[in-house]
Amino acid sequence: MSPETNAEEPAGEHVVIAGGGFGGIEVAKALGAAGIRATVVDRQNHHLFQPLLYQVATAALSPADIAEPIRRILRPYPSTDVLFAEVIGIDKQTRTVLLKGHAPIRFDRLVIATGSRPSYFGNDDWEKCAPGLKTIDDARRLRTRLLLAFERAEICDDPVEQHRLMTSVVIGAGPTGVEMAGSIAELARYTLARDFRKIKPNLARTILIEAGPRALPAFTPKMSKYTEKALHDLGVEIRMGQKVERISDGSVTVAGETIEAGTIVWAAGVKATDASGWLEVEPDRAGRIAVNPDLSVPGLDRIYVLGDLALLNGEDGQPLPGLAQVAKQQGQFLGKALAANIRSGTPLPPFQFHNRGNVAIIGRHAAVFEAGRLRLKGWPAWFAWAVVHVYLLVGFQHRVIVSLQWIWRYLTYDRGARLVAEDANEQK
Amino acid sequence: MSPETNAEEPAGEHVVIAGGGFGGIEVAKALGAAGIRATVVDRQNHHLFQPLLYQVATAALSPADIAEPIRRILRPYPSTDVLFAEVIGIDKQTRTVLLKGHAPIRFDRLVIATGSRPSYFGNDDWEKCAPGLKTIDDARRLRTRLLLAFERAEICDDPVEQHRLMTSVVIGAGPTGVEMAGSIAELARYTLARDFRKIKPNLARTILIEAGPRALPAFTPKMSKYTEKALHDLGVEIRMGQKVERISDGSVTVAGETIEAGTIVWAAGVKATDASGWLEVEPDRAGRIAVNPDLSVPGLDRIYVLGDLALLNGEDGQPLPGLAQVAKQQGQFLGKALAANIRSGTPLPPFQFHNRGNVAIIGRHAAVFEAGRLRLKGWPAWFAWAVVHVYLLVGFQHRVIVSLQWIWRYLTYDRGARLVAEDANEQK
Repeated sequence: MSPETNAEEPAGEHVVIAGGGFGGIEVAKALGAAGIRATVVDRQNHHLFQPLLYQVATAALSPADIAEPIRRILRPYPSTDVLFAEVIGIDKQTRTVLLKGHAPIRFDRLVIATGSRPSYFGNDDWEKCAPGLKTIDDARRLRTRLLLAFERAEICDDPVEQHRLMTSVVIGAGPTGVEMAGSIAELARYTLARDFRKIKPNLARTILIEAGPRALPAFTPKMSKYTEKALHDLGVEIRMGQKVERISDGSVTVAGETIEAGTIVWAAGVKATDASGWLEVEPDRAGRIAVNPDLSVPGLDRIYVLGDLALLNGEDGQPLPGLAQVAKQQGQFLGKALAANIRSGTPLPPFQFHNRGNVAIIGRHAAVFEAGRLRLKGWPAWFAWAVVHVYLLVGFQHRVIVSLQWIWRYLTYDRGARLVAEDANEQK
Repeated sequence: MSPETNAEEPAGEHVVIAGGGFGGIEVAKALGAAGIRATVVDRQNHHLFQPLLYQVATAALSPADIAEPIRRILRPYPSTDVLFAEVIGIDKQTRTVLLKGHAPIRFDRLVIATGSRPSYFGNDDWEKCAPGLKTIDDARRLRTRLLLAFERAEICDDPVEQHRLMTSVVIGAGPTGVEMAGSIAELARYTLARDFRKIKPNLARTILIEAGPRALPAFTPKMSKYTEKALHDLGVEIRMGQKVERISDGSVTVAGETIEAGTIVWAAGVKATDASGWLEVEPDRAGRIAVNPDLSVPGLDRIYVLGDLALLNGEDGQPLPGLAQVAKQQGQFLGKALAANIRSGTPLPPFQFHNRGNVAIIGRHAAVFEAGRLRLKGWPAWFAWAVVHVYLLVGFQHRVIVSLQWIWRYLTYDRGARLVAEDANEQK
C-alpha cells in the first residue's frame, strides 16, 4: 500500500529519499535511528559498493559480495520503508514523487540522491560499444565480454582476429580507469595465462587512453608518475594526452590511429542523473544542481540534493568531487540535520567535508594513497586501501568473505568468479 | 586452432569429451593424469555443482560459489584442452563432433556426458511458466522471480493479487523439489520476514505437489514420512498423489483446483539430452542410451556414454539413477579404463557402482540420509550432508567460502545473495 492510501498512516513528517547509494542510505539510517518516517525509493533492490565494481567485472569478486539488499540494511529501523521502483519525475505542486508502474508517493521532505551515470560527451552511440561501469549488470556483462574474448581467441584461426580479441582498451585514467586497466592486465597475465593452451594470455594487450596529460589527475604529479610506471610494469600500454575520436563495435580511433579491440571500457566521465529536469532547475554542464551549504535546493521548499548530483564548493573553492566519501558524509550530515530539524526545529547547519584521503589501486602490491600531507604508495598504500574498503563494506558477512577472497587471490593470483552467462554464445 | 588444422598436432589418440559435468570432468582429469590428449567441449565455461543450485535460486549462495571454470580444473593437465562451444551433432563416418560456430573436431574416441534437462512429459509449453533448475542462469532467473514477487506484493493494494504473488508452487517431490520447497519456505519465513513492513512474508504459501504417493520415493517410507512432517513444520503445504493438469503464467491446476502463484518451479522430472539423435541409436522413454557394462555404446566404435545419459542396470537389476555420484564414479572409472586401454591395450572392465548413500536437505536442522543400512535424519543427516557437499565442491577456495556462508546463514538465517537483476523492472 502506498502511503497516501494507507488509512493508518503514521503521524509526523514523511521523508522520501530517491536513491539507495552511499548518500541516500546514510540519510535513511540517520532518520531511522531518530524514528522519523522515511521511504527509500530505488530501482535496484540493493545498495552497491561501487568502488569495488571493477573487481566484479574482472572476476575477482561475486556480485553479492559487494551488494546488500536495501531492506536488510534498514531492517533495524521500523520507521523506514523501501520501495523498489524507478523514479520518473517529481510534482512540486502536489509534493509527490512519480514512479514507473506504481502510484505516486507523497513527501513532506524530499532527498534526491540518484547519483550519476557514464557521460559520453555527446557521443551517446558510443555507449553500446564502450559500456561504463555503474551497476552489477554492467559488471556482469563486462566480465562475460572479457572472458568470452579470450575463449574466442583460443579457437580462432586468424591471427589478426586473435590479436584483436586479446586487446582491451580502457578509456579514461581516473581511479576507475586505472583500476580497470591494472585489473584486466593482471587477469590476463596471471590468472588466465595458466589456463589456456593455444593462446598465450600474457601476450594480451591492455591499453589505457587518457585525454589529459597524466593518470589520476586528482593526485599529485609524483603519484601519477608512480601509477604510470606501475601500470607499465603490469604490461599496460599508456597513452596520455590522446583524445578518442571514434568508437565503433570492436575498434577505437585515437589520435588518428584505429585500435582493434575485443573489449572496450568507458571510464572517462560521468554526468548527473535527470534530477534537474524533474525539479525544473538549471543544472551545470555535468548535470549537477547547485545547492545551498545545507544541501537544500535554492528556491525549493524542503527539497535536498546530495552526492554526485550536488554542486557545492569545498573549502578550497572547488566543487566537491563525485566520490563515495563525499556522498556518504553528506548523507550522514543531512540525515542528522533533518532529524534535528523535524524533531525540534533546529536549523540545518552548513555541510563540511572532511577529506579522508584519495586512494586508487593499480594492482597487486601497487596503489597510491593521499590524505592531506600523508602520501603512500606501493604496499603500504595497498594495505591502507584494503583496510579502508573492507571496513566500509556494509555487512559483516561481506567483510569476512571479501577479506578471505582477497587473501586467497593474493596468495594464488586466482579468481573464482570467472562465469560466462549461459546465453553468451548467442551474444555478439 | 582446431585440432585438425594444427600442423603440430601431437601424436597419440585424441579423446573428445562432450560435457563438463560430474562425469565428463572426471574422465578428463583421469586422462590428463595419464598424459593422454583429451578435449572437453561444453557450452558453459564452467563446471557446475548442480546439487547446490537450489541454494543459488534461493539467495543463499552466489553463482560463483558453486561453479568453477573448466579451464581452471584442468590446468594441471597439459595434455587436456577445453573448447567453449555447443555440440550440435556427431558424424560417425568422419569421426568428428559438429559444433555451433566452430569447425568440427576429430576424435579417436568419444565420451558423451551431456546430461539431462527438465522434462515436461509432452507439455513443453509449461517450460516458460514453470522453469526447471539446471543452469546458473536458471537459478539466477528463479531468484529474481522469487524476490520480485515479494517486492511486488509489498506495493500491491489488491489483497487477492498480493496473495497470489506470495504463493510459490514447487512441482515434484524428489530431492530437488523437497530442497526447493524447504528453502523457499525458510527464505520467506526467516529471511524476508524481518525486512518487509507491509506484507508479512511468514504468511507466504509454499506448496509442494507430487503425483506419486510420497515425497522422496528413492528413500524408505519412514524417511518420506519424516520429510513430509519436517516440510509441514516449515509451513510447506504438501499435496501428494495429485497430478498437475495445467500450468499457465501465474497459475497451476492440480486435481481440479487452480492455484494462483507468483512463482512456479518444475522439479518433476528430467530427460536426457539429444545424444541418441546425434548417434542415431534408439533411446529409452527418458531419452537414455543403453550401454554395455564398460559404458561403450553397442554397435559403435569407441564411443562411450555415461551419467544421466546412460541406461545401465545396477546390481539390483534396476537402472542406475541420474545422480551426481553415479556420473562421477562412471567418469572416474571410464577415464582410468580408457587410459589403460590406450596406453597398454588393457580391455575395459565392467563398471561397478558403489552407493555412497542418498541425502536430501529439507531445511535448517532437517535432512535425511540413507546409505545401506545406515539411516540418519534431522541434525546428524544435515551434518552428514554438509560435510559431504562441502568436501565434494571442486576448488579449495570454494570449500572455505561455502562453509563460512553456511555457518553464517545457520547462525543468522541471513542470505547474502538477494540480488534482483537490473532489468527486472522491465520483466514480467
